[in-house]
Amino acid sequence: MPSRKELANAVRVLAMDAVQKAKSGHPGAAMGMADLAEVLWNDFMTHNPANPRWPNRDRFVLSNGHASILLYAVLHLSGYDLGLEELKNFRRLDSLTPGHPEYGITPGVETTTGPLGQGFANAVGMALGEKLLAAEFNREKFNLVDHYTYCIVGDGCLMEGISHEAASLAGLLRLGKLITLWDNNGISIDGPVKGWFADNTLQRFEAYGWQVEEVDGHDPEAVKKALAKARKAKDCPSLISCKTCIACYAPTKEGSASSHGAPLGEEEIEGARRKMGWKYPPFEIPSEIRVGWDARLAGQQAEKKWNKLLENYKLKFPEAGRAYEDRLSGELPPHWREQALELARLAQEGKPEAAGEQSLRSFSRSLLRGLGESLPALIGGSADLTDSVGAKWEGAREITPESSGGNYIHYGVREFAMGAIMNGLSLHGGFIPYAGTFMVFADYAKNALRLSALMGRQVIWVLTHDSIGVGEDGPTHQPVEQLCSLRSIPGLQVWRPCDAVETAAAWINAVRASARPSCIVLPRQNVPGQDRRRAVLSEAKQVDEPSPIEKIILTVRRGGYILRECKKGEPELILLSSGSEVSLAMAAAELLEARDVQVRVVSMPCAEIFDEQEVSWRAAVLPSNVRRRIAVEASMGDWWRKYVGLDGAVVGMRGFGKSAPMNVLYKYYGFTVENVVKVAERMLGCKEKDKEKEKDA
Amino acid sequence: MPSRKELANAVRVLAMDAVQKAKSGHPGAAMGMADLAEVLWNDFMTHNPANPRWPNRDRFVLSNGHASILLYAVLHLSGYDLGLEELKNFRRLDSLTPGHPEYGITPGVETTTGPLGQGFANAVGMALGEKLLAAEFNREKFNLVDHYTYCIVGDGCLMEGISHEAASLAGLLRLGKLITLWDNNGISIDGPVKGWFADNTLQRFEAYGWQVEEVDGHDPEAVKKALAKARKAKDCPSLISCKTCIACYAPTKEGSASSHGAPLGEEEIEGARRKMGWKYPPFEIPSEIRVGWDARLAGQQAEKKWNKLLENYKLKFPEAGRAYEDRLSGELPPHWREQALELARLAQEGKPEAAGEQSLRSFSRSLLRGLGESLPALIGGSADLTDSVGAKWEGAREITPESSGGNYIHYGVREFAMGAIMNGLSLHGGFIPYAGTFMVFADYAKNALRLSALMGRQVIWVLTHDSIGVGEDGPTHQPVEQLCSLRSIPGLQVWRPCDAVETAAAWINAVRASARPSCIVLPRQNVPGQDRRRAVLSEAKQVDEPSPIEKIILTVRRGGYILRECKKGEPELILLSSGSEVSLAMAAAELLEARDVQVRVVSMPCAEIFDEQEVSWRAAVLPSNVRRRIAVEASMGDWWRKYVGLDGAVVGMRGFGKSAPMNVLYKYYGFTVENVVKVAERMLGCKEKDKEKEKDA
Repeated sequence: MPSRKELANAVRVLAMDAVQKAKSGHPGAAMGMADLAEVLWNDFMTHNPANPRWPNRDRFVLSNGHASILLYAVLHLSGYDLGLEELKNFRRLDSLTPGHPEYGITPGVETTTGPLGQGFANAVGMALGEKLLAAEFNREKFNLVDHYTYCIVGDGCLMEGISHEAASLAGLLRLGKLITLWDNNGISIDGPVKGWFADNTLQRFEAYGWQVEEVDGHDPEAVKKALAKARKAKDCPSLISCKTCIACYAPTKEGSASSHGAPLGEEEIEGARRKMGWKYPPFEIPSEIRVGWDARLAGQQAEKKWNKLLENYKLKFPEAGRAYEDRLSGELPPHWREQALELARLAQEGKPEAAGEQSLRSFSRSLLRGLGESLPALIGGSADLTDSVGAKWEGAREITPESSGGNYIHYGVREFAMGAIMNGLSLHGGFIPYAGTFMVFADYAKNALRLSALMGRQVIWVLTHDSIGVGEDGPTHQPVEQLCSLRSIPGLQVWRPCDAVETAAAWINAVRASARPSCIVLPRQNVPGQDRRRAVLSEAKQVDEPSPIEKIILTVRRGGYILRECKKGEPELILLSSGSEVSLAMAAAELLEARDVQVRVVSMPCAEIFDEQEVSWRAAVLPSNVRRRIAVEASMGDWWRKYVGLDGAVVGMRGFGKSAPMNVLYKYYGFTVENVVKVAERMLGCKEKDKEKEKDA
Repeated sequence: MPSRKELANAVRVLAMDAVQKAKSGHPGAAMGMADLAEVLWNDFMTHNPANPRWPNRDRFVLSNGHASILLYAVLHLSGYDLGLEELKNFRRLDSLTPGHPEYGITPGVETTTGPLGQGFANAVGMALGEKLLAAEFNREKFNLVDHYTYCIVGDGCLMEGISHEAASLAGLLRLGKLITLWDNNGISIDGPVKGWFADNTLQRFEAYGWQVEEVDGHDPEAVKKALAKARKAKDCPSLISCKTCIACYAPTKEGSASSHGAPLGEEEIEGARRKMGWKYPPFEIPSEIRVGWDARLAGQQAEKKWNKLLENYKLKFPEAGRAYEDRLSGELPPHWREQALELARLAQEGKPEAAGEQSLRSFSRSLLRGLGESLPALIGGSADLTDSVGAKWEGAREITPESSGGNYIHYGVREFAMGAIMNGLSLHGGFIPYAGTFMVFADYAKNALRLSALMGRQVIWVLTHDSIGVGEDGPTHQPVEQLCSLRSIPGLQVWRPCDAVETAAAWINAVRASARPSCIVLPRQNVPGQDRRRAVLSEAKQVDEPSPIEKIILTVRRGGYILRECKKGEPELILLSSGSEVSLAMAAAELLEARDVQVRVVSMPCAEIFDEQEVSWRAAVLPSNVRRRIAVEASMGDWWRKYVGLDGAVVGMRGFGKSAPMNVLYKYYGFTVENVVKVAERMLGCKEKDKEKEKDA
C-alpha cells in the first residue's frame, strides 16, 4: 500500500505536469496543499464520484480557485468522470478543466471560484443550507440531511473583506458543520505576506465564535486530528490553520512566490520528481496509488445507504418525503400557474387604470407572502434594510443563532457576503434565495452578482430606492449608473417595473428563471397604476385560454411591449421608458396626442428579456423605420442609445444627483411631463422641416 | 459655564429640530453620539474653523454618515462658516447641509460618507498620509506635519468587509495617530444587532494590532481618558468602543431602531427637551453654550503658531520648505511639460509605425518611472499584483511596518480598501495616489471608485488584463462588462489606449486631471504600435509650436480621433475601436481599402473625454451623415450603440468568455481581421442595394 506521502505526491506531479503542459497555471499552491487535501479526501470526504449530484454528499469548496489543478487532480484520482485526457487539456478551449474551477463544467466542482474570498462565503451558504434543510426534514433517527461543508482558503481569501462578513455570520449562526482549512503558506503574489498581512487570524476567528487550531499542513496525522476535532465541534464552525510550504518539493522554487502563477519549468519539475522519489513519467499514475485514492466503491455504498434511509423516511413520513423531493427537484409546484395568476390579480385589485399611487415596495412584499406560502424553497433576507425594501413577509420565520430553521436571514450590513451566501444556498440545492438592499449598494456585491450570472444560478435581488427618487439622502444613496452596470452583466435579468402589474410579472419571471439571476428594481416613491386599455397584448401561445390579466402578464413578460398604442396608423414618435418614469411618458403621450401627434409608449421593464424575444416581436414594438424615439429614465442615459439610436433623444441623468426632496429633484433634472413634451416637440420640429423639405423637392 | 451635558444637549436639540424640519433624516445616532463628540471636539480636536483647509488640522471622519446632522451641528457650534439657516435648510436643494456629508459642499467636511465602512477606510488613508508626510518633512524640533485623524464608526461600518481590510492594514502600518470611536449602540436598522452582529469586535481589532478600550459613551470623563490614552499609543491605531444609547433622552424612542431613520415627531421632541431640561425653542442656542463650543480663537492661535513654525522651517530648510509647499499646492511641477514630452518621446522610441509588439503594462511602468521621479506626490500600490500590472517602478520605495516613509504600498488582496484609502490619501492632500489590479476586480472596489468621482478626487487606477485577452484564467478573470460599468460612472475618465503613444497620453491626462479619477485600462497581451502617418491631428491651440509628437499627444488627448483617414473624400465606412482591438480595425481598413472602400478608423481611447470635446471636433471625427459604422471592442457591445446607432454594427462580446489561450479566444469570439471585414462587407452590401434602389427610383 502506498504511503500517504506517495498519495499526496500523485497530486503534486499531476499539478506540475498539467501546468507545464498548459504553459500556464498555478502549481505552487496545489503542491503545498497536496498533503492536507489527501487527508481530507481519503479520510473524511463522503461523496460518490459516480454521482456528483448526490444530495447528501459532503461539499468541498476550493476558495483559492487558482489552485484548480489540485481539485482536478483529486477529482480525477478519486474516480470522477474526469479522465487523464482532461488533465492534459488543462486550460484549453472547452476542456473540462478550465483555468479556475467553473460550476457546471467539471463533475464534482461545487462552485466557481477564483475571485478571492467568495468561495469561502459560498461555503458558508452551503453549510447554512444544510443546517436549514436538516432542521426542516430530519427526524429522530432519520438524519436525512447530514453532511459537512469543507472549504480551503488561501491568504488572499482571508485578506478580502468578504472573509470578515462571511465568517462573522457563520460564527453567529453556529454553522458547526462548516470546516475551513487555511493554506497558511505565508506567500502571496507579491512575496512573503508578512509585509501586508500580519493579522492574528486565529484570534480574529475566535472573535467570531469559531473553533480554531493550527497544525503542520504537511503532517497528515496532525491534519487528521484537527479535522476530527473540528467535526466534533457541532456548535461552531472551525478554522484549521495549516502551515504549508508553497511548491513543496520544488528544489529551488519551494517557499517562493515564483512558483505561484507560472509553470515550474522542465528542470525544476525533474528536480521535484527526484526529491519526491517519484519514478513515473508525466501523467502516469501507478495503479496502487490509483487504488489508494479510489473513492468509487465507498461512495457508491454511502449513497446506497442513504438511498435506503430515504426510502424508509418516505415510508415513515410520506408527506415530508414528498416535500423533500419536491424541494430538491427545483421544480415549481403544480399549482404554480394558479399562484402566479393570483399574484397578477392582486396587482389589478382596485382597477389599476383608475387606481391611485402604489407603493411597489409594499406590493412586492405582498407578492412575497403569496410566493413564500407556495414556494417553500424561497429563502429571504436583507442587508439590514428589511422594512425599507419590503423583504420580509408576514409568516417568514427568522433564522437566529438560537433557532435551527427558518426562511429569513438578517444578513446584517454585509451586501457582498449576502450575494455570495445566496450563491452558496442556491448551489447547495433546495433553495431559491432572494434578498434586498438599496440599489446603490449592489455596488458592494457586484462581483457576487456576476458569479450568479456566470454560474447560471437563480438568485433574486430586490433592489429598491432606484434613482434620484431617493431624494434627501443624496447622491451617495441615489443610483444613477447602477442600472447600466447591472444590465451589462451577461445573463442577469434586470426588471424595473412601472407598476404593480409589472412588478407581479417581474416576480413571476424571476421565479420561473431557474437558471439565471434576477434583479427586481423598485422605486422609493409611489407610482400610479398604468392604464392598459390601449396596450398591444401578446398572442398567448403558452396558455390555452388566457384570462385578460394572464394575457397582460404574458405581454409584460416579454420584457418590452406597447403599453399605449397611438390612435391611428404608424406612430410618428415612440416614447420608451421603464419604472417610475413610465407615468411621465404616458402623460406626455396624452398631451402630444391632444396636439394630433401619433405617439406610441413602449414600456421596457426588462431589456434583457426583450432582446431575447423573436425578431418579429421586437420589430413590432420598435419598427425600424420609426426613428423619432425618446427614452425617459432617471438613470445615465447613454445606455438607451441601443434603442433610440443616433436620431433619438434621451431624457436621462448626466451625472450624480443631489440631496433634496424627490419632487424637487425630478423637476430639477427635467423628469417632468413638460420637459418630455418639449423634447418631443423639438424632435417633431425636425418633422416639420422634413415636410417642408419634401415640399421643396 | 454650561456643563458638558448641556453642551452635548445643544447637539441633540439641533439634530432633533433639523431632522424634524426637513421631515427626513437620522436623529437617533446623532443624539447617541452627542456626548462623545462634545469631548472630542471641545477637548481634543485641533482645528481652525476660519480655515478648514489648514494643512495641519486634525482630520475628523464621520463614517456612519447618515448621522450627518451631528457633524453639521458640531461644525456650526464650533464656528465654521455654516449658519443656522443652513441647519434649517437641512436636506434641501443646494443647501450646505445635504443628507449625507459631502466633500466640497460643507466647510469642515473632510470626506463624503454614507456608504458604510468607506469613511473608516478614508480615515486610514488620511492617517497614512499624515505619517508619510511627517516622515518626509519633519525635522528635529520641527514637527511640521503632526495631526491626528479621528473617526467615528457605527455598527454597520464594522459589519462591512471593508472594515476588515482597512483595519488590518492600519494595524500592520502602525498608524498610531488614527483614533476610531465606535458608536456601540447595539442598534441597526433592523433592530438590536445581537441577532446579526455578535463579533467580539475588540478582540478582532486586537488581532489586527490595535489598542482597544471600552467606555460608557455618555460619560465624558471616561471618553476623555480613553482618548488621552489612545493619543499616547504612538505605535498602533486605537479603537474606543463607546457604549451609547441611540436617541438618548427621547422619552419613548430611546434605545429603539425607530429613532434611526425618521424624524422623532413633535411630541417626542418636546418630551426629549423636557428630559434634558432644555428650555429653548427650536434652533435657539443660548450664548453661553455657544461660547462653550466656540473653537475660533483657539483655532486661530493654533494655526498662527503653526504658520510661525512653517516660516522658521522654511528659513532653516529652504529646499524642504519649498518642496513641502509644492506638495500641498497640488500643482504640477514647472518642468511638467518637458516631462510629458519626454514620456511621449519614450512612447515613440523605435518608430512605433515600424515597431513590433509592445507590452503596454511594462511601458506603463516605464512611464511611471518618469512620473515618479518628477512628481513626488505620486504614491503607488497594488492589491497583490505588483508585477502583473506594472505598478512599481524602480526607485519606488516600499512602505513597510518598519519604515516610516516611502511611496509604494503593498495593499494586499484588499481592492475595496485600496480604493477608499486612495481616496483618503487624496483628501488628505499632498498625494496623487495610483494603484493597480486586474480589471475584473475593480468590481470589488466599485463604490470607492464611485466616491472618487462624486468627490472629484484625483485617484488613478491601473486596470490590466482587460478582456478575454486574459486567456487561460477564464471568465472569472476576463472582464466583459467592466468597461461599460466603469464608463457609466459620471466624471470618471476611462482610458483604454491602443499602444504606447496612447498610453503616454492617458497617463498625461490622468496626471493633469486634478479633480477627477481616471482608469488606465491595459491589455495582458502585447499590441503593435500604430502607424499615425494618416492620422488627422488636432490644431494644437494650447501650445505655441508643438513638436510632431506633441501634436499627436494633443490629438489623442481629445479622447477620440481619426487614427487613419480614408484615401479620398468622405468615408463610406467608419471603424471605431479602442485598446487591443484597434490593430484589428487598422488591418481590416487596409484590406477594405484594397477593395476600394473608403474607410476611416477612429481610435476612441477615452469616450468620456471625447464626449466633452466641442461639437465641431466630434462632428469632424464622426460626421452624422456617415451611418455605416462598426465598433470593434472585446467587451459587451451594446455600449457602443451611442456611436454606431441603429444602423451600425458592433463586433463585441455577447456574454462571458472561456478559459483557453488568448489567440484561440480572439478567433472563437470573432475578433479577427477576417470577421471585421466580413461584417463590413455585409454592411456595404446594403450600400450596393442602396445604389440599386437609387437606380430603380
